[in-house]
Amino acid sequence: MGILVVGSVAFDSVKTPFGNKEDVLGGAATYFSIAASYFTDVSIIAVVGEDFPEKHVTFLRQKGVDLSGLERQKGNTFRWKGEYGVDLNTRTTLDTQLNVFADFSPKLLSSHRPKEYLFLGNIDPDLQRSVLEQMKGPKLVACDTMNYWIENKRESLLKTLSMVDLLVINDAETRELADEPNLIRAARLILTWGPKMLVIKRGEYGALMFSANSVFAVPAFPVEDVIDPTGAGDSFAGGLMGYLAAAGVHDDAAMRKAIVMGSVMASFTIMDFGPRVLGDLTYPEIESRYRAFRKISLFEDL
Amino acid sequence: MGILVVGSVAFDSVKTPFGNKEDVLGGAATYFSIAASYFTDVSIIAVVGEDFPEKHVTFLRQKGVDLSGLERQKGNTFRWKGEYGVDLNTRTTLDTQLNVFADFSPKLLSSHRPKEYLFLGNIDPDLQRSVLEQMKGPKLVACDTMNYWIENKRESLLKTLSMVDLLVINDAETRELADEPNLIRAARLILTWGPKMLVIKRGEYGALMFSANSVFAVPAFPVEDVIDPTGAGDSFAGGLMGYLAAAGVHDDAAMRKAIVMGSVMASFTIMDFGPRVLGDLTYPEIESRYRAFRKISLFEDL
Repeated sequence: MGILVVGSVAFDSVKTPFGNKEDVLGGAATYFSIAASYFTDVSIIAVVGEDFPEKHVTFLRQKGVDLSGLERQKGNTFRWKGEYGVDLNTRTTLDTQLNVFADFSPKLLSSHRPKEYLFLGNIDPDLQRSVLEQMKGPKLVACDTMNYWIENKRESLLKTLSMVDLLVINDAETRELADEPNLIRAARLILTWGPKMLVIKRGEYGALMFSANSVFAVPAFPVEDVIDPTGAGDSFAGGLMGYLAAAGVHDDAAMRKAIVMGSVMASFTIMDFGPRVLGDLTYPEIESRYRAFRKISLFEDL
Repeated sequence: MGILVVGSVAFDSVKTPFGNKEDVLGGAATYFSIAASYFTDVSIIAVVGEDFPEKHVTFLRQKGVDLSGLERQKGNTFRWKGEYGVDLNTRTTLDTQLNVFADFSPKLLSSHRPKEYLFLGNIDPDLQRSVLEQMKGPKLVACDTMNYWIENKRESLLKTLSMVDLLVINDAETRELADEPNLIRAARLILTWGPKMLVIKRGEYGALMFSANSVFAVPAFPVEDVIDPTGAGDSFAGGLMGYLAAAGVHDDAAMRKAIVMGSVMASFTIMDFGPRVLGDLTYPEIESRYRAFRKISLFEDL
């Protein structure tokens, strides 16, 4: 039971039109695991440096996240610095210091191998496969990727894709991966490469899902006080996978609810810098936003 | 009964990644009236030049559009030339020749004044009010506008807005009009200026509606063969107003269905250059896409 997630744990320095913060807790595995923790057990495989403070470990542990796979290496933790444009839709990376993340080699403990749900965060596709190969036949394997791997490790990425059930990427990545400007054609093409389902994240515009027999489209939950979109995509993936793991099924109806749940989790993340709002939720608050989401999306038949 | 629409009838020359066409029938009133014609009676107030061919008049008349308010003036018809970027989300205007549209002064016939639904297309807000003042108390007044009027005729535009029930604009216009990057805050502000409802068009990302008591969000209908987005926004408005006029009510449930109907009509328009696909529909095809739309948007309660 439960989810294993492999990915980054980092410090983010972020500037948005609403302020800036230095060295807040970040990273894909961080946001993913906090979001998923409301639904199921989550274990992280990641690496941090000597500068990673105990308070972050305590915070994640209090969320119930299993950190037995969080390696601590000599050196500094991965650092990312970025700035968002006025409408928060454009992001510029100002600085990336991989630090200990540069030599990350994910090692699973025996307790990790039987996990039924695996999320391969945005890392080298070679490493994604090395994790997958250490698992004992998971029930559902999902992965993320980014333009860097699409451009520089395409062959390896395609090999990884042939082994996963679900690909969760954004719209620009979908177009680039398929080399096709039309998102639907791009999605159809990617589905011939292995993944049975493709979920496309579109930020403030919502999400799309494509599978052999179904298309699902949802807007994003409209949030009045968007402060910082960092981590929204990873919170989305965490909510999605968390919901699926708790449900124990991933048929079309469950996938749709899982995508909405992912959107719900992302809508909390963007309300502040870092993962504090996401981390401070109660399950009734999550349920209540899911229901509000349904209310804003419903329309009757003719 | 029925709708009166005032706006442009034009020739468009459009280049997209999928081809280009010169001098196809275009203009906001054109797309609006064809889309609305499937639901109710539509009358156009517009102006064309001596170069406007009889075949276009015949085409619109065959759609049941009342052209008694289509003036023919000495000179040439309004011409617009534009080019779309590779993902069709960005548009560059290459040339605008207002021609007879420059001196357009909308004059209503006595048959136009009792129309219950009025759509003030994107023209000078002074002219929008002059049309509104010629009407005999319409049941629902909607309007569109654009960045040019927001920047150059703000006072007049605000006066028009204070007199309309429904404003239908895109997201960039919403942000610019309210001078507020957050769309929800922008919408809330604009609602204090007069309109009881604001519908925000987001192109391939769908639409949002805000009123005092309700928020509604829908994605766009995913279309595989997008050829030319020109006229999508006007077809959306036409489908929306057409549906409302046929329903005879504009409560929250009707507004939601009307917005989906607008999205349906827009999803046909973008399948080719010009309004031919939009003009060649049958009502069962429209109903069928509405139902497909519901299918791709539905998700269950928790």
